[in-house]
Amino acid sequence: MIAVGIDVGGTSIKGATINEKGEILDRFSMPTDKSLPPEKIIGELCDLVNQTLSEHHYDDKVVGIGIGIPGTFNKETGVIVNLPNIPSWNDFNLKTFMEERCHLYVKLVNDADAAALAEAKFGVAKEFNYVLMITLGTGVGGGIVINKNLYNGNLGMGAELGHMVIELDGKECGCGRHGCFEAYASATALIRDTKEAMAKAPNSLMNEVANELGQIDARVPFIAEERGDLTAKEVINNYVKYLSEGLLNYCNIFRPNVIVLSGGVANEGENLLSRVRSYMKAHHYGMENAPEVEIKQASLGYDAGKIGAAALYL
Amino acid sequence: MIAVGIDVGGTSIKGATINEKGEILDRFSMPTDKSLPPEKIIGELCDLVNQTLSEHHYDDKVVGIGIGIPGTFNKETGVIVNLPNIPSWNDFNLKTFMEERCHLYVKLVNDADAAALAEAKFGVAKEFNYVLMITLGTGVGGGIVINKNLYNGNLGMGAELGHMVIELDGKECGCGRHGCFEAYASATALIRDTKEAMAKAPNSLMNEVANELGQIDARVPFIAEERGDLTAKEVINNYVKYLSEGLLNYCNIFRPNVIVLSGGVANEGENLLSRVRSYMKAHHYGMENAPEVEIKQASLGYDAGKIGAAALYL
Repeated sequence: MIAVGIDVGGTSIKGATINEKGEILDRFSMPTDKSLPPEKIIGELCDLVNQTLSEHHYDDKVVGIGIGIPGTFNKETGVIVNLPNIPSWNDFNLKTFMEERCHLYVKLVNDADAAALAEAKFGVAKEFNYVLMITLGTGVGGGIVINKNLYNGNLGMGAELGHMVIELDGKECGCGRHGCFEAYASATALIRDTKEAMAKAPNSLMNEVANELGQIDARVPFIAEERGDLTAKEVINNYVKYLSEGLLNYCNIFRPNVIVLSGGVANEGENLLSRVRSYMKAHHYGMENAPEVEIKQASLGYDAGKIGAAALYL
Repeated sequence: MIAVGIDVGGTSIKGATINEKGEILDRFSMPTDKSLPPEKIIGELCDLVNQTLSEHHYDDKVVGIGIGIPGTFNKETGVIVNLPNIPSWNDFNLKTFMEERCHLYVKLVNDADAAALAEAKFGVAKEFNYVLMITLGTGVGGGIVINKNLYNGNLGMGAELGHMVIELDGKECGCGRHGCFEAYASATALIRDTKEAMAKAPNSLMNEVANELGQIDARVPFIAEERGDLTAKEVINNYVKYLSEGLLNYCNIFRPNVIVLSGGVANEGENLLSRVRSYMKAHHYGMENAPEVEIKQASLGYDAGKIGAAALYL
């Protein structure tokens, strides 16, 4: 059994054929030319899929195409609702168009959900039934996988795990609310806090590190702290507190077996994860007698989106 | 098809036979004598069940017994872990004992979960697939029902929806954390805030109302506000804000179709619910373009626990 997994991005569209073990067999990719009408660019994508499948003589082993979308869509009809990075696709019926051109079933999935499903079926969380994935990037996103099935919610609008208020009337969030988890635990929030701390402490080594990197990104406080900078340590401790409190909320709400962290900040790996675990342990995983929850780093990297989209069939 | 639903309480144990429409056919009850060893009192309960079933000649129409427990248990083995109100039952294998005495399958369920399942299958939420129930009582509890199935979580420990921090480093919660939803949205929290406001404003009509009722309970601010008391209005507005912000979190996290409110404070009915709806609407159900969520009052009252326990089979 083979499925096609496609990951739509603002710069390129990447795809792969994937077997029932979640292994990638062949890869394909093409640039995302946003100036083209959707019929044209998705037509090219369909040609690329058809060509890949016929070249390798997969024939009737192929069960369907999953396509990860960085935006919202109508799950039933397959019409794109809002794709902020490729607005020309809005209102286009991606599902019907591709099904007609490729003669295969097509399913759409949110890209963050696809990554969660990939980790839950084939990645670091494959041994667990209750899996939460939290992405610490520009924003905070995530997905919920229960017994290897994605949780969809009303209208398939998925779980918006970044938009839980953890500090009432707190920092303004992009969503319009104040004090959301995202406003404290995203890479964007960490960079904001780093900049604020650097401005207040011009002697902090974070300034030196930022100069070396040529920019202020989420790595700055971690590198500066390693060199013994106390201001950086404070920035990180504060970040760990907010991140962990949000994760403790999710431990209570879902009682997951595992929370998988992905995205820019999660690339700090054990250096970050071990602190989060300590904080959560010291706070009894949210409640006395609460079951322990494993905190793991995502393992599938950039392939997670493709594998997860294919995993809708596998 | 008929199932037996039992609701274990600290004062009495109540049960009923219930048909596939969720209708109660016969009721039975007995006092909870906490001084008796579990073999004795649960033995009596089994006799009562057997007697009820044989009196009515239900014979092989009965498919099982569901029993709602106000505490924690091991879902697989059926052993009681912690029953704060009836500690003598701790470590007792309720499931095996009852199955042997009644010759029927027995399933244990948390009592708040049972109530949620009852509303989702037979009550006010029966037309919806994604149902959240939140109980505003001494604490804040709840249950999640997805496509008519209870969400269980790791070890069947359920969802602890009251223990989500909404104000970091906020008011101390019974669970050990600070700033939990429960610490602001429970009846206990509303009574605490009412008492604080009464102490600060001795001329508030709330003092008069409390005298009339002979106690300070969650009704005090609502009655005083109706008589034009501005301090009471402030207490209620503050309560509505915290309650609504917590519910908005759950709108984002789960994208439910409906949130059902139950418990003491929910008895205020539309007077409370209409304010919550207004607050949530004004805050875009948590995010711009978020789907609207219905807010309803629970409809099954004290029968919800029995019906929900039976509903595990129906």
